Amino acid sequence: MATRAQGTTPTRVRGHPPRAGAAVPAAGAGEVVREARGARRRRETRARLLDAALKLMADRGMDGVAINEITEAADVGFGSFYNHFESKEAIHRALTDLVFEEFANALDRALTGVTDPAEIIAASVRHTLYRARRDRTWALFLLRESLSSRMLTRGLGLHLLRDIEKGIGAGRFKAEDPLMAFMGLAGSVLAALSIEVQYGEAADTPLPPELRSAVGLPSPEFPERAATTMLRFLGVPPAEARRVARMPLAELEAPRATGD
Amino acid sequence: MATRAQGTTPTRVRGHPPRAGAAVPAAGAGEVVREARGARRRRETRARLLDAALKLMADRGMDGVAINEITEAADVGFGSFYNHFESKEAIHRALTDLVFEEFANALDRALTGVTDPAEIIAASVRHTLYRARRDRTWALFLLRESLSSRMLTRGLGLHLLRDIEKGIGAGRFKAEDPLMAFMGLAGSVLAALSIEVQYGEAADTPLPPELRSAVGLPSPEFPERAATTMLRFLGVPPAEARRVARMPLAELEAPRATGD
Repeated sequence: MATRAQGTTPTRVRGHPPRAGAAVPAAGAGEVVREARGARRRRETRARLLDAALKLMADRGMDGVAINEITEAADVGFGSFYNHFESKEAIHRALTDLVFEEFANALDRALTGVTDPAEIIAASVRHTLYRARRDRTWALFLLRESLSSRMLTRGLGLHLLRDIEKGIGAGRFKAEDPLMAFMGLAGSVLAALSIEVQYGEAADTPLPPELRSAVGLPSPEFPERAATTMLRFLGVPPAEARRVARMPLAELEAPRATGD
Repeated sequence: MATRAQGTTPTRVRGHPPRAGAAVPAAGAGEVVREARGARRRRETRARLLDAALKLMADRGMDGVAINEITEAADVGFGSFYNHFESKEAIHRALTDLVFEEFANALDRALTGVTDPAEIIAASVRHTLYRARRDRTWALFLLRESLSSRMLTRGLGLHLLRDIEKGIGAGRFKAEDPLMAFMGLAGSVLAALSIEVQYGEAADTPLPPELRSAVGLPSPEFPERAATTMLRFLGVPPAEARRVARMPLAELEAPRATGD
């Protein structure tokens, strides 16, 4: 296989682990420490850039944000942006991967061993809404990108379609038209996210009082109410839907480090 | 009833009907023709500005668009923008009114006399999706604004909530939690709009072939499939949902002139 280029220095590492079988140059202890510190700093810079871009792009969309705004918000020199990302499109792609793929994979890992498709869907919906409650920027980014991009071909969407089909196959769900059921569920999650962001406990503009009491918002149990209704949409009977949507929730691991 | 204001000249008409009680100047036939022509030109200019702003804002959002881009696209002098709108926010507000309020009212007018809440909801969903199919810009604007703004307090959303509550009251729908049912239906409509725009017959990026056949898209009957599933979500039995979602559709009147 390919061997690593001679003279690779920390600043040229591009976020990939060294390939197996690569020749390692002999190095003194001092060099190892320096390399470790450089790699850590590199990771931190990358995380700061991603963080700043997430906030700005959640607010204004990719087109509304310039690279120098990202580097200023991240407190990083303009030029070093390009040590981490080739372009604005590249950092945007890294963010959509984080939000749509990484989060879907974290859900999968948290739900390893759960076999009931109803429980998988309810837990996924609740985790998504609790995450939105803790991290409004994340939710705004997801909302902004969700309906405008390739919803059907991305991690979060594909996993949902897979879980619905599994439930139909197992006789747990009733849905004559799986694509349409997926569409309804995906849309429901997004509408729930939007309601949580707009009318939840940390909302900018609370609902008018008469509407507040009519719809019962904000509601601490909102994620469970949403999950119950989505199971009902899939034909799960009322009492069973309420029970499954209130089962103990396995903890979701912290978001994966975005450094590498 | 109202008589026209003294000395009102076409260029000063600001899109509001003249106040009641104002005096009308005696005018020769030539003046009447000139006034009519001026008013028509004014209306056309306003419509061109709205049209251009809708396209630009559907694409980039209000923040991503400058007034001079709107006037250039509309082929109108920069200054005359202000004869029609006070600000960028004002033209954006006019557009959201058109899309969220006017369309909801047109649906109401088309459905006058229909009493079955299932038929009302199915027809509204189908009209919305057929409109999106004919007018991609309209759909993109609606999608962009829907989840990011006050979904629950706007015409289109409020009408849907009203129709769901009517159906629950009449025993036609089963939903234990009306707000959540609304949320799911609203989200389903938006997801359907997004699918129509992304994967419909006029889509930019067709689905990969394997997914295409798996989900059956694009589909000429997509609006009917979507409406069927939404009725199923509300507890309408399968055969009945299919029947109601395929009833003859009353024609929707052309969008109201945006001139005044």
